[in-house]
Amino acid sequence: MPDEKSFHMSPDDFRRHGHAVVDWIADYYSRIETFPVLSRVEPGQIRASLPLQPPAKGESVETMLRDVETLILPGVTHWQSPNFYAYFPCNASGPAILGDLLSSGLGVQGMLWATSPACTELETHVLDWLVGMLALPQKFLSSSSGGGVIQDTASSASLCALLAARERATNFSSNRRGCDGKLVAYTSSQAHSSIEKAVQIAGLGGDHLRLIPVDKNFAMQPDALGRQITTDRQAGLVPCFVAATVGTTSSNAMDPVAEIGRICCEHNLWLHVDAAMSGTAALCPEFRHIHNGLELADSYCFNPHKWMFTNFDCDCFYVADRKALIQTLSVLPEYLRNKATESGAVIDYRNWQIPMGRRFRALKLWFVIRHYGVEGLQHHVREHVRLAQQFADWVRHDARFELAAPVPLNLVCFRHRGGDEANQTLMDRLNRSGDLYLTHTRLNDRLTLRLCVGQTNTAERHVEHAWKRIQEEAASLP
Amino acid sequence: MPDEKSFHMSPDDFRRHGHAVVDWIADYYSRIETFPVLSRVEPGQIRASLPLQPPAKGESVETMLRDVETLILPGVTHWQSPNFYAYFPCNASGPAILGDLLSSGLGVQGMLWATSPACTELETHVLDWLVGMLALPQKFLSSSSGGGVIQDTASSASLCALLAARERATNFSSNRRGCDGKLVAYTSSQAHSSIEKAVQIAGLGGDHLRLIPVDKNFAMQPDALGRQITTDRQAGLVPCFVAATVGTTSSNAMDPVAEIGRICCEHNLWLHVDAAMSGTAALCPEFRHIHNGLELADSYCFNPHKWMFTNFDCDCFYVADRKALIQTLSVLPEYLRNKATESGAVIDYRNWQIPMGRRFRALKLWFVIRHYGVEGLQHHVREHVRLAQQFADWVRHDARFELAAPVPLNLVCFRHRGGDEANQTLMDRLNRSGDLYLTHTRLNDRLTLRLCVGQTNTAERHVEHAWKRIQEEAASLP
Repeated sequence: MPDEKSFHMSPDDFRRHGHAVVDWIADYYSRIETFPVLSRVEPGQIRASLPLQPPAKGESVETMLRDVETLILPGVTHWQSPNFYAYFPCNASGPAILGDLLSSGLGVQGMLWATSPACTELETHVLDWLVGMLALPQKFLSSSSGGGVIQDTASSASLCALLAARERATNFSSNRRGCDGKLVAYTSSQAHSSIEKAVQIAGLGGDHLRLIPVDKNFAMQPDALGRQITTDRQAGLVPCFVAATVGTTSSNAMDPVAEIGRICCEHNLWLHVDAAMSGTAALCPEFRHIHNGLELADSYCFNPHKWMFTNFDCDCFYVADRKALIQTLSVLPEYLRNKATESGAVIDYRNWQIPMGRRFRALKLWFVIRHYGVEGLQHHVREHVRLAQQFADWVRHDARFELAAPVPLNLVCFRHRGGDEANQTLMDRLNRSGDLYLTHTRLNDRLTLRLCVGQTNTAERHVEHAWKRIQEEAASLP
Repeated sequence: MPDEKSFHMSPDDFRRHGHAVVDWIADYYSRIETFPVLSRVEPGQIRASLPLQPPAKGESVETMLRDVETLILPGVTHWQSPNFYAYFPCNASGPAILGDLLSSGLGVQGMLWATSPACTELETHVLDWLVGMLALPQKFLSSSSGGGVIQDTASSASLCALLAARERATNFSSNRRGCDGKLVAYTSSQAHSSIEKAVQIAGLGGDHLRLIPVDKNFAMQPDALGRQITTDRQAGLVPCFVAATVGTTSSNAMDPVAEIGRICCEHNLWLHVDAAMSGTAALCPEFRHIHNGLELADSYCFNPHKWMFTNFDCDCFYVADRKALIQTLSVLPEYLRNKATESGAVIDYRNWQIPMGRRFRALKLWFVIRHYGVEGLQHHVREHVRLAQQFADWVRHDARFELAAPVPLNLVCFRHRGGDEANQTLMDRLNRSGDLYLTHTRLNDRLTLRLCVGQTNTAERHVEHAWKRIQEEAASLP
């Protein structure tokens, strides 16, 4: 007698519970401004409310949703609040959530073309669309020598770029023989920490990462880069990789990609351009100057999950020479062999990334582009930049404050003239109030506040309110 | 005048469209058995149906859903079909889809405890639950010296384990000084390709990976491992890492973890145990013998996204010494400094993984455990094992076929006695028929069919039908 007992959720139950979860999310967005943006719980507080043991018997979805409301929500920092100005945004949108839901529902694993052709082909297609939408160099098109792939994060994209650079510089022998202690990588002192992490992971060693000094705008000094490369070559080392940043995390500084690119060409170094946050701005023709010189890059990435209304995780990573990337990251065991792969006519994205498995992430990106249209995306990016520039103007005209760096796009670095302690107090009070959330950096060794206008729903009234609250707290500083 | 134009989806529109997407998914599961399991499209066919240019103006969700149905679905290989027996499963379930939907809706980015305490604390809590549920060693508990973290895949988990091993073996100097060409890693000739990929990425070089021979059951030979370690030491090399597999991809072979562990202790090597597919079996006390010796491991992983009804991506990775992992993967820039981190009282999971950002993946795992209860999970795992064993019995009793390897759990490796060509024909015809999807490997240099019973909804009638279809195709072989 077959045992037909089942604990699975039936399609009808899924329909019913699914509607309830969708409703909960719709309601969440309707009331999101009522929550303190930064969670106020203490370490351990959420865990203390959870049962020590897992349930022996199944529980109802109603109970689980109630627990999300009462036990989880207090521990959530509301990244999707329009009053979120911290770090860089990790923005979401309705169409992205729905595209991601479809991806979860279909549940395909697209490691190979053959394991779900649509997963691979839609990804290639949408990444080709984005080459046009951002006016990226044609060599990043899949119809050219290159191509794009969705990575989880810019950290992983940088690591893949570095690995390909490492292999190219050693005639594809490091994969086999290991690192030889001679390879050197370069980035600016303002680059994201993930570059240092990648250099460590890839076995080059942090001592072989040169942090090139920056100019007064926190952008890499190309002359210093050129000199350092020459010095390293003369010392018998092998320079192989430069990571330039278009929009640093600290202050949104723009490295001079064209000048850096010419140096990389001259010395035959792999140039990776990390535009994780700011790349999205190139949707608008008036901001495309940020990519000047990109035609000299070997790889490039930007994150729709930061500023293009696409849920995490979604980093778009492009290479000019896909063969170098694939040769670096391919290992083909028997159990993955298949006719499509052997025909050479398809892309197997597992060879473009660190993990083997992958979900159908192109769906959410496709939904976002189609829902907004190019016009809608441009509108909201422009609006964020306009609001950040407006905020910067307010700062400029308040004698108590100063701008700490140029404001090329939508990140404003500013500080109270009262010194580090005043700024720390200001930030702590604002964040504790729950009215908004912003974070800090250090520029020229001074504590600096960062306000990034990039959350999907941030509109004029939110930025006005943020400035009003900052002024209020400044007025009550000791 | 503020520009209040908006292209965003309103909460009410999200509610309406969300219900439609949920309904589409519920309907998809109701009719999933009507689709050919393996997609029949040709390379390029999906792309050819998509517009060359992205839309300038936004489109309706109705249009997008219609395109999912007509343009995307033909290119989908149905991993969630109960007739999917290929590779290892990547299974999903209603509660997992709903938990993941909530994660998309909340849109939090949990790189730090402070950036959403509930994201970190629920993850720690659920991973501690799983230590009990699988009867894993207590040292993997967060209240001990170790702890668990959700990684995207076992590939990434293995890479993190290898990196920590590399650092420990070099007194945490490789991160700084780079690989020195002396470190050696070990795994069996049957291990997953991700181990070789990790060794390449980490800069050890594939030449420094020893593929230890296996016994007749395809399990690593510990004596050979011990001899190889001694040989390498005598040659002045530095053995640092062993990856044992509990359930190999090719044939579900079980490496003798206890014996391997004793050798690792003796030589002070990091032992990582990859139980990506089979670890889930330990939910049931009668299968926990697969983890014998795990108390000697430094790290361990298994994938709820393979066989525990939790949507991709979800790999649970445990370490016995979290300090070693954190020291290996930490880089702390100013803009991430915060009081909670500096208090030392919290976990910042960005230091437990390659990428920096992370989504709230614990929600789906929490929903799965609570919906099924331990009892429900055990039931379905037992049932899958029972069905695979039944299938193996049918093979044993059909003179045309033979088993190609032991069947410890839910993977059956078998072949037609007619040789490689007969098996290739059999597999191609079955897969082309659309009735089921299974894949192959090579064992003892002979083409071998693999049938894994692990898709969420696979029940007795599906396995019976699969065997019937295999017999039919066998009868019509030339």
